[in-house]
Amino acid sequence: MDALAAVTKHARALLPERAVITDRARLRTYDCDGLTHHRVVPGLVVLPETAEQVASVVAACARHRVPFVARGSGTGLSGGALPHAAGVLIVTSRLRRILAVRPADERAVVEPGVINLDVTRAAAPYGYHYAPDPSSRQICSIGGNVAENSGGAHCLKYGFTAGHVVAADLVTPDGDLVTLGGEAPDAPGYDLLGTVVGAEGTLGVVTSVTVRLTRDPEAVTTLLAAFPGTDDAGAATSAIIAAGIVPAAIEMMDALAIEAAEAAVACGYPPGAGAVLIIELDGPAADVHAELATVTRLCASATELRIAADAAERELIWTGRRSAFAAVGRISPDYIVQDGVIPRTALPEVLRAITTLAADTGVRVANVFHAGDGNLHPLVLFDAAVPGQEDRAEDVSGAILDLCVTHGGSITGEHGVGVDKAKYLPRMFTDADLDTMQLVRCAFDPAGIANPGKIFPTPRLCGEIPRTHHAATEPPAAAEIF
Amino acid sequence: MDALAAVTKHARALLPERAVITDRARLRTYDCDGLTHHRVVPGLVVLPETAEQVASVVAACARHRVPFVARGSGTGLSGGALPHAAGVLIVTSRLRRILAVRPADERAVVEPGVINLDVTRAAAPYGYHYAPDPSSRQICSIGGNVAENSGGAHCLKYGFTAGHVVAADLVTPDGDLVTLGGEAPDAPGYDLLGTVVGAEGTLGVVTSVTVRLTRDPEAVTTLLAAFPGTDDAGAATSAIIAAGIVPAAIEMMDALAIEAAEAAVACGYPPGAGAVLIIELDGPAADVHAELATVTRLCASATELRIAADAAERELIWTGRRSAFAAVGRISPDYIVQDGVIPRTALPEVLRAITTLAADTGVRVANVFHAGDGNLHPLVLFDAAVPGQEDRAEDVSGAILDLCVTHGGSITGEHGVGVDKAKYLPRMFTDADLDTMQLVRCAFDPAGIANPGKIFPTPRLCGEIPRTHHAATEPPAAAEIF
Repeated sequence: MDALAAVTKHARALLPERAVITDRARLRTYDCDGLTHHRVVPGLVVLPETAEQVASVVAACARHRVPFVARGSGTGLSGGALPHAAGVLIVTSRLRRILAVRPADERAVVEPGVINLDVTRAAAPYGYHYAPDPSSRQICSIGGNVAENSGGAHCLKYGFTAGHVVAADLVTPDGDLVTLGGEAPDAPGYDLLGTVVGAEGTLGVVTSVTVRLTRDPEAVTTLLAAFPGTDDAGAATSAIIAAGIVPAAIEMMDALAIEAAEAAVACGYPPGAGAVLIIELDGPAADVHAELATVTRLCASATELRIAADAAERELIWTGRRSAFAAVGRISPDYIVQDGVIPRTALPEVLRAITTLAADTGVRVANVFHAGDGNLHPLVLFDAAVPGQEDRAEDVSGAILDLCVTHGGSITGEHGVGVDKAKYLPRMFTDADLDTMQLVRCAFDPAGIANPGKIFPTPRLCGEIPRTHHAATEPPAAAEIF
Repeated sequence: MDALAAVTKHARALLPERAVITDRARLRTYDCDGLTHHRVVPGLVVLPETAEQVASVVAACARHRVPFVARGSGTGLSGGALPHAAGVLIVTSRLRRILAVRPADERAVVEPGVINLDVTRAAAPYGYHYAPDPSSRQICSIGGNVAENSGGAHCLKYGFTAGHVVAADLVTPDGDLVTLGGEAPDAPGYDLLGTVVGAEGTLGVVTSVTVRLTRDPEAVTTLLAAFPGTDDAGAATSAIIAAGIVPAAIEMMDALAIEAAEAAVACGYPPGAGAVLIIELDGPAADVHAELATVTRLCASATELRIAADAAERELIWTGRRSAFAAVGRISPDYIVQDGVIPRTALPEVLRAITTLAADTGVRVANVFHAGDGNLHPLVLFDAAVPGQEDRAEDVSGAILDLCVTHGGSITGEHGVGVDKAKYLPRMFTDADLDTMQLVRCAFDPAGIANPGKIFPTPRLCGEIPRTHHAATEPPAAAEIF
């Protein structure tokens, strides 16, 4: 019996029939995540319903050296949940219980398959919410958020997923079920929880996540400010932050992104705007009132400034932003969603460089992004039916990442590395940096079966990783001394 | 030539004469850190002045399998910087340059030997400060803060060191110089920076730290509230947090701690108080004003409530708190500084249990602690000259940690595990948890030379760590299937 067949037999004995998928046609529905131009049909799909079942499946994978990949809702944009053809896809969608909501401790305990927005819905009656809010929050899962350390518009003020996860149960690639972190702040020992959050499923599978709940603000105000161009909008963003205000969100969309959103959802943004900022202020009412006055003053170069009068108007402003990625499909048959990040102070310079790059290459780039924390999402447009366009778009997309790195930023802000960006990692990290990470990976996963092929440009067998790269500075006569 | 002699020769060739200490009398001055009842004279002390020198010394240690321990200012309270008799103590006090202060990016770059308060002093002209503020901030070093993930009174609102370090250069135990984290938020790859912060020097030596600067608040108000006892003070703490207010600090001292502080620094706390709370509110003036009204209302059970009229009064209030540990020396010849943490909601219950424990055993316990985040610092008093008292104090001190763990807390809040608490770690972690941590340690340090003997109750050779602990739940007929 081959290894995958052995694991399949184990799964059939362990799980109910509906939870083990081997039929080729049904397997095919799991062949990609949100990065649809990478597709692999998994060897086996399982849908466990308990942590113990996850541990048992992973232990069987470890015994037989069969790769496994965990998948939440499959909305990831870097191919982090791309299956392995000879491996097991562990789908967490049936691990969807909210185990506890404890407002007095500001905590909720949820299974990984729980939908992001459902955590907020469960906390809402107590006046709390779950702060990290990816645009896909209606469908993406907490487990996927943990794997990718997901961000969202309100992460400017409230921080990424890593800042909101205080504990997790993890099935290690050996099949052990361990607990990382805890209820109390600052647990002793290594912060392995921090390492696991954002590890893109390469260190194990979380089966329970304890998250921090955030108190709903007393007041919320949403502004839509239209500018002649991204330079003015970028300058306003810098001015607001420099004034000491940290809005809940500052989002930017450029002319092309506005055009797309308008075509898709008729969000009613000011016609002819070169750029818009969506600025949300929240907190105590007195604060929001004072900050609104300052923000209005700092947006003096805006051609139009709208303040949402009620929840419906606020929702309409956000609908344009949240639908922007999908909306670009209205103005271009194909597009690449890029994700890079730069220090906020470099925003105007990098945006100008992207404009120049687009003009020089004739490739259209729509910009829609988290301006406040410098997290860019350039959408690089192309038509796959026109020979050469896709390659040119890929080149422009890569060049934008180079711009991010040379300005002190990073090749991904919140979408992860996955299969998509492994090749770019050496632009940020030295061999010693990457091998240090791979040694940690090997500590969790010596057999290399947890989501192999993701993140690292040159996966290595654990015994192959060099432990020392270069002689550190030696004293003059080192060779002679020893 | 023995191994230590070889490293000594290497150090002499590399470093100026003043930076290599081998004289027994001078070595003896480095024989302990703030946990003075553990003492070991180091085999060699070096005081490097550059990152390259640190890397070269560590590389020599790696070649000769000589243990090394990094030490900042030596103020740690868990013996994390206790030297190794056959090893090298790497003292970072000459790595004390502030390399950059960049208020526009809210960042400063400092070497590890820089004193905590000096970062704030360097940022002050720009209206910024470095938020984590251990009571020892006038003397403790940033490198030590990174090793211990240090907290402080204002960490209730602003978070621990881990939340304020965005990048670091690290010399790994192989002598490689790697960069972890970066200027931009959320770097791709594993969050090894998070693992290294708080790893108590077991994963390498940081040689440069990029920290987040925090804008000075518009307004600060400090209150001193006296209560009949810790129950009332604890209830007020819970009520303030439950009202949605996060003060910059809420500190509590009980009657015995007040008595000690009064004897030492004449801070003028209300005589006869059973407990005091020091509550500091900061932020926009309008906020602080509104919060002050609420806090005053929620402290209705206070017998006296003082609001500092100016900076001098504020300083006097804080002087009592900051001197409290040392002040206990006025009322007891010897004492143990304990450090545990509990969920805030368990505060009244645990304080009552400590009172019962003290009454039952006849051991005096003074409580002075960060009430807002549940971080207890019971001071367990004894007289070493009276036979049996030290042992009883140790027992009470350990029993307090048990109380913390059984109430969902942790055996250390901010002082670290070091040599002092390694034996308590199994009360919080299973063998699988601890071995997962040790596998990560081995990823960085296969030879086990970086601060050996700290943190882990049973240090293992890297080849000895079991990779799988228990069969995870098996399907019924597993034995038969395979």
